[in-house]
Parts: sequence; structure tokens; C-alpha cells
Amino acid sequence: MSSSSDIAVVGAGPVGLFAVFECGMLGLDCQVFDSLQEPGGQCAALYPEKPIYDIPGIPRIDAGALIARLGEQAEPFRPRYRLGHAVTGLESRCGRWHLTTAGGAAFDAAAVVIAAGAGVFGFNRPPLDGIERYEGKAVHYMVSERERFRGKRLVIAGGGDSAVDWVLALADLAAHVTMVHRRRRFRAAPDSVARLEALAEAGRVDLAVPRQLAGLEGDGETLSAVVLADLDGRTERVAADALLPFYGLATTLGPIAEWRLDLDDARIAVDPATCETSRRGIFAIGDIAHYPGKLKLILTGFAEAATAAHAAWAVARPGRALHFEYSTTKGLPDGGVAAGGGRE
Amino acid sequence: MSSSSDIAVVGAGPVGLFAVFECGMLGLDCQVFDSLQEPGGQCAALYPEKPIYDIPGIPRIDAGALIARLGEQAEPFRPRYRLGHAVTGLESRCGRWHLTTAGGAAFDAAAVVIAAGAGVFGFNRPPLDGIERYEGKAVHYMVSERERFRGKRLVIAGGGDSAVDWVLALADLAAHVTMVHRRRRFRAAPDSVARLEALAEAGRVDLAVPRQLAGLEGDGETLSAVVLADLDGRTERVAADALLPFYGLATTLGPIAEWRLDLDDARIAVDPATCETSRRGIFAIGDIAHYPGKLKLILTGFAEAATAAHAAWAVARPGRALHFEYSTTKGLPDGGVAAGGGRE
Repeated sequence: MSSSSDIAVVGAGPVGLFAVFECGMLGLDCQVFDSLQEPGGQCAALYPEKPIYDIPGIPRIDAGALIARLGEQAEPFRPRYRLGHAVTGLESRCGRWHLTTAGGAAFDAAAVVIAAGAGVFGFNRPPLDGIERYEGKAVHYMVSERERFRGKRLVIAGGGDSAVDWVLALADLAAHVTMVHRRRRFRAAPDSVARLEALAEAGRVDLAVPRQLAGLEGDGETLSAVVLADLDGRTERVAADALLPFYGLATTLGPIAEWRLDLDDARIAVDPATCETSRRGIFAIGDIAHYPGKLKLILTGFAEAATAAHAAWAVARPGRALHFEYSTTKGLPDGGVAAGGGRE
Repeated sequence: MSSSSDIAVVGAGPVGLFAVFECGMLGLDCQVFDSLQEPGGQCAALYPEKPIYDIPGIPRIDAGALIARLGEQAEPFRPRYRLGHAVTGLESRCGRWHLTTAGGAAFDAAAVVIAAGAGVFGFNRPPLDGIERYEGKAVHYMVSERERFRGKRLVIAGGGDSAVDWVLALADLAAHVTMVHRRRRFRAAPDSVARLEALAEAGRVDLAVPRQLAGLEGDGETLSAVVLADLDGRTERVAADALLPFYGLATTLGPIAEWRLDLDDARIAVDPATCETSRRGIFAIGDIAHYPGKLKLILTGFAEAATAAHAAWAVARPGRALHFEYSTTKGLPDGGVAAGGGRE
């Protein structure tokens, strides 16, 4: 498999996957890099079962299903996926871009499209002794499958949308849920907070507020209780099989910060007319890209993917004129256009 | 039904329909105006059976089906459709926008989102005596249902994508197809032209090139033949049940040209950060809007709808702060969020 391509897409989230499609429609082939082992970025890793309502033409779709369909849409263009490859180095050599990965592999492309979302992300971890021994067993920072919590006694910690939403989503399934927050007031959407309070009044969720996580009890594999502390330091034990702390994502640009791209508000500054960064032939799209009026919506990233693909075409095919065509006219590489239409 | 709303969306094509959704998600209610009797714009009126491949997350969908799904997505926000209402007048009065229609009705809104596509469109008509008597019976400028041409003898005229695509789409269905073009060379996508030539070689389509349409024979209702002329004026008769001329759309801004909006390249100039036009509170999105780097793609219009909705919110709710939320967190007005998720 060649390590060269027209385009290197950095990030295999929804916007990166759609960039493959848009590049493919213009005849550009792509390698797609992601540090994760599966495509989909946060949609697949953090909330695959969560419904999204604002994808145009799709009144409701779970995040994981959206990723599957974007992968299917990109497939006719035969992208080469480089999964588990975190791109660390990016250098210009002889008019092309050379990429190196954390594992030491090397690749090159005429142009680079950075679709790295929030950048490198990790979960904020509560400062509890020995917590890392329980991670993935009894302590979970994300829920990829709700069923694993059926019949379990859960402690869910945090005060934002994630914590509140997961209490709402798991209250029916779990044997018992205790919700821990260090303040009385939640920072989540008002509707969600109202539903949480209704569950608490009905006795289906215990609200432990204001409380903080103070310790874990168990054998280092199986959890037996979570220790909570009030503002005065008095502690209490809550019997529990699992702890789900939602203290937010810590995201950083990671190696991207070293690529000498102009930044704006901790994101990559781009020209909205092209999505090109301050370096020729490097484009940024999706949540990691910034310009005046930017909305961090998946659907906005999709439009940026089209913009970047058209601009990257000029870099990858210098001196040639692009004949702008609609997908209805051109069809797909293997399919052809089934029906004619009314556009002259 | 009140004639006032937060937003007046001018144009019920795909981008106008999605603007209703985006406005609705921000709590803004919409009236939607279109001169046509059905929503969907060109997608519904000109090529409802034509597949579209570049809607993100939808590998293939017919244009008419896309419109149906966008309508479904907008429905929870209860838009008031004003179909068959061509907006002709737009005036500022006491801080609101007053709209008047060709029929003399009056409406008003805090902000206006123009999603009028190519503007007012009409078909270029071949200059044949008495052609208007056959229109809608034996002469068709668009195909909304292929089945009506089954077993018919067709003359299809034109040299662009529409003419060629429709020959390809109808060759199997029709009893006979004659393709008329005044030049030898077609201006359509190379793949399509190759398929047309293959059909001609196989004897399934007669290519009458270079020829022009010269006359119609029939009783003024039913067509019996189309008269063609070569470059020297020599004529010949082709027996035919129907003539389909694809000489392109003539589009004009129509009344919009009188609204004193700055134009750019015969389209409405907007600030891409907001999609606002040169007049405060009037926004333009989709094909009718222009800014540097603009791509005339439906998916680009969708992102512009989100941008305009956010900017229009500030006009419709002056002095209030918008709490930016994801659809995953907020859900829909009637539904609520089914599952929680991993976003803090």
C-alpha cells in the first residue's frame, strides 16, 4: 500500500470522513489518520448511542449510525485508513507534505486537511487514590453501551450536561443511582435539570449535593463503595458497583501546536473562503478550525469539508481548471447516474 | 392564523426548509413563503426523481425524498407555510420587516431569511409557432414522472447535461428517442456523452445533429411530428408524440432586485460570518447568496442556514444572550433527549 496520496486527512471523525467523500468527488485520493483504532472520533468513542437531531435531511440518527453512513458514503473512493496512527510531525519537503506518526511511520501528501475536532482528548480524572486500577472495570468516563449497567448500583458524578444526561438515561436501567455534585446547582440544560429533579422527588435518584468524591472502596478490581465528603469534610459511604465521573474532557491541540500554524482562540485560524491555514496546502475544518462567525456544529464542518476539498484540488492539481459539477450530474465512480434531471 | 412571526423565510426549497429547523432549535418561529404551490423548489418541481449523492450521511437520496425529510425535520417547529405566495414587496416599518405578496396579502417578521435559490425561474422556450398550445400536453420542459413517457416516440432537444441525462434516463422506456442539437458536440459531462454515443451506435437513439427545431405538426393538442432543419434550412419530419426541449432555465432575481440589497455577481452579497445582507435583519442563504469562496451546493446552504439562524436570533431577540447548545443535549420540542451522552 503506497504511503503517498493527494490528500492526508488528519482525523477520522464525521467531518474527516466527509472530507474523503468531497475529495473523492473531485478525483483526489485520501489517506485518513486517527490516533484511535476506529473511525468516528468522539461520535464513536464517547456517545455512539446518543441521538443527533440537526443533521440536515436526517430528523434523528444515533452518532454511531451517522459514522457508519459517512463511512459508507466515503467507501467508493477507497480511502486508506491509517488508524491507531497519531500524526506527530508535519514538514514541507520538495513541495509536498511529509507526515510522521507516533509509531515512527512516514507518509506524504500534496495537501493536508486537518479535521482533528477538539484535538487530542482525555478525560478529567477525579483525584482519588488508586482510581486507575478500577478504570475500564468499575470506573468509566464514557458509556459506549448502556446495557452493561443494567441492575448495577451507580454513582454518577459531575454537574454538566453529560452527568445529568447519563443519570436520565440510566435511571431506569440501574438498580440505584446516586448523583454527586459539589454544588447544589447543575450547569445542564434547564429541561434536563427539571427531569433530574423529578426523578429525585420520585425517589428514583439520590441527589448527593453538595458533595465531593473522597475515596473508593474495593479490592482493586471490583468496587464495593464510593466515599463522599460534604463541604466540612464529613464522609459517608455509598454502596456502589460502578462510578461514572463526568468531569469533562481535557483537550489539547497536542502535536498540532508544533506545526507553526496561526492559531485563534486556541484553534487553527483559517480563511473561511478556502479553509486554508496560514501555511499553503494545509487546511483545517470542523471544530478545530476557527474564523469569524464559526459555529461548532457537525453540519458546518461538512460544508467546510466541501470548501477545503475544492481549495485542496487547486494545490494537488496545480495549473488545471476544475469543472464544477453537481453530484446529480456526475454520479459516483462505480454507480453512474441513474436518472436524468432538469439542470442545464 | 397570525400574519406575524419572528422570521420570514422566503423560499421553501431545501435550504429554506432547513432554515426553519435551525430557527426552530433557537426558539424562533417561521412563516415560509414560496411562489410555487408545493415546498421543495427546484428539487421538487424539476427533478424529484433525480438521485443526489452529496448530502452528508445520506449516500444516495432522490431529490423529492430529501425534501420530504427536510419537511419532516422542520415539522416539530410548526412552520406556517405561505405557498403560492410570491413575495414582491419588502419594507422596513417600525423596526420590523413588512412583506407583501403578488396577491396583495401582507405579513411581517422581525428578520427575513431569503433562500430563493436561483430566484424566479422559467424555462427557455424554443421559438416555434403555436408551441404554447402543446405545453403540458405534448411539450414538456421538465420531467416530474418518467412513466408518462413509456412507449412514446420522443424528440429531446438541447446539448447540455439535462438533455443528455434525460435521453439516458428515458431511452429504455420510450418507443423511440430522437436527440436534436444544433451542434455536433454536446456540452454535458464526458461520461454521459460517452453513454449517449454508445446508445446511438446501438441504434437505440437517433442523433439528429446538427439540427434545429423548426416546427410542430399536430392538432394543437396531440402532436404528430416535429419538424427539424439542418444548417442549410432543409427540413425533415420526425414522427413524435412528445417534444422535450431542454434549453436551460432563465432565472432572474425578480422582485428581489428591487429590495435595495447589495448584489455581487447577480446574487445577493452577504457577510459569510452571519449571512446578513447589506440591510440589517435581512439574511440570504443558499444559491442566491454570494461571498468569496462560495460553493453552490445544497450542503453549503444548510450550514448557511445555521449561521443565519444564529445571527437572526440576535435581531429577533435583541439584548438577550444565546446559550449555544447541541441538539444532542437539547433534543426537540416534543421529543426530549432519549439517551444521555459524553459531552460536558
